[in-house]
Amino acid sequence: MFLSVLLVACNNMKTETAKEQNAELVFPKGNKVTNNNFTGSAWVQMFMTNDSTYNTSIGNVTFEPGARTNWHKHPGGQILLVTDGKGYYQEKGKPAQLIQKGDFVRIPPDTEHWHGAASGSGLTHIAINPNIDKGSVVWSQPVTDEEYNKVNE
Amino acid sequence: MFLSVLLVACNNMKTETAKEQNAELVFPKGNKVTNNNFTGSAWVQMFMTNDSTYNTSIGNVTFEPGARTNWHKHPGGQILLVTDGKGYYQEKGKPAQLIQKGDFVRIPPDTEHWHGAASGSGLTHIAINPNIDKGSVVWSQPVTDEEYNKVNE
Repeated sequence: MFLSVLLVACNNMKTETAKEQNAELVFPKGNKVTNNNFTGSAWVQMFMTNDSTYNTSIGNVTFEPGARTNWHKHPGGQILLVTDGKGYYQEKGKPAQLIQKGDFVRIPPDTEHWHGAASGSGLTHIAINPNIDKGSVVWSQPVTDEEYNKVNE
Repeated sequence: MFLSVLLVACNNMKTETAKEQNAELVFPKGNKVTNNNFTGSAWVQMFMTNDSTYNTSIGNVTFEPGARTNWHKHPGGQILLVTDGKGYYQEKGKPAQLIQKGDFVRIPPDTEHWHGAASGSGLTHIAINPNIDKGSVVWSQPVTDEEYNKVNE
């Protein structure tokens, strides 16, 4: 009995340690998104915004479970580096792709798409927007619950 | 006595868990660098190499303690996102800067510099090279032990 209690305590400690370490972010979470270009709760930390020397914008984006961008496109394309969690990337008219920690996603120029967390997991990715001299992101309509739920089935 | 043994076992388990999780890489370590542009042991995983659509190269670089690049410059500039460990970034003729997990470094075009691990810590960073249409990296001489040790004093 005494042994069991200690082992349970030991396992709980292990779980706590794991949780604490998952909670330790690599990059700052930044500010909560308050515009209408996202559904659900998301945070953005910009590292570099429309910098003409580097012709690039770079930010860190964190989505809570269920959160996602609206449909949108980038005239210069975009690259995602997934640093934590699980979610989806979908181009218009194509099946969604599961993306998770360690994945690298190329989003071609002028390609309508969305990205965001899975319904059961948060998602964090670095977003690199090269060729900003070709123009800024073009936002479109939200990803409806129907579209989103189909992907998460 | 029995309790002590269990608590020691418990603490060991906690330490093991922490070690395992630190060892869990976000991105692949890639291949060991075998050219002469680095001192010490380093690994590179390229995600995107001289891609003309994105006008960008992106890679993940891991340095063992003491490892560093040679002096070099990028005609289009470079951006580093430090994902783990501690190290240094130094521009020619300026003091070295300590860089560590979570840091973002802008390296201006045509600026002679080096980056690498501290003597007592590994370093992992994502390296983003924009404007690759302006030319490839220009490698120069190694960072001597004298130069390196001065930074690590």
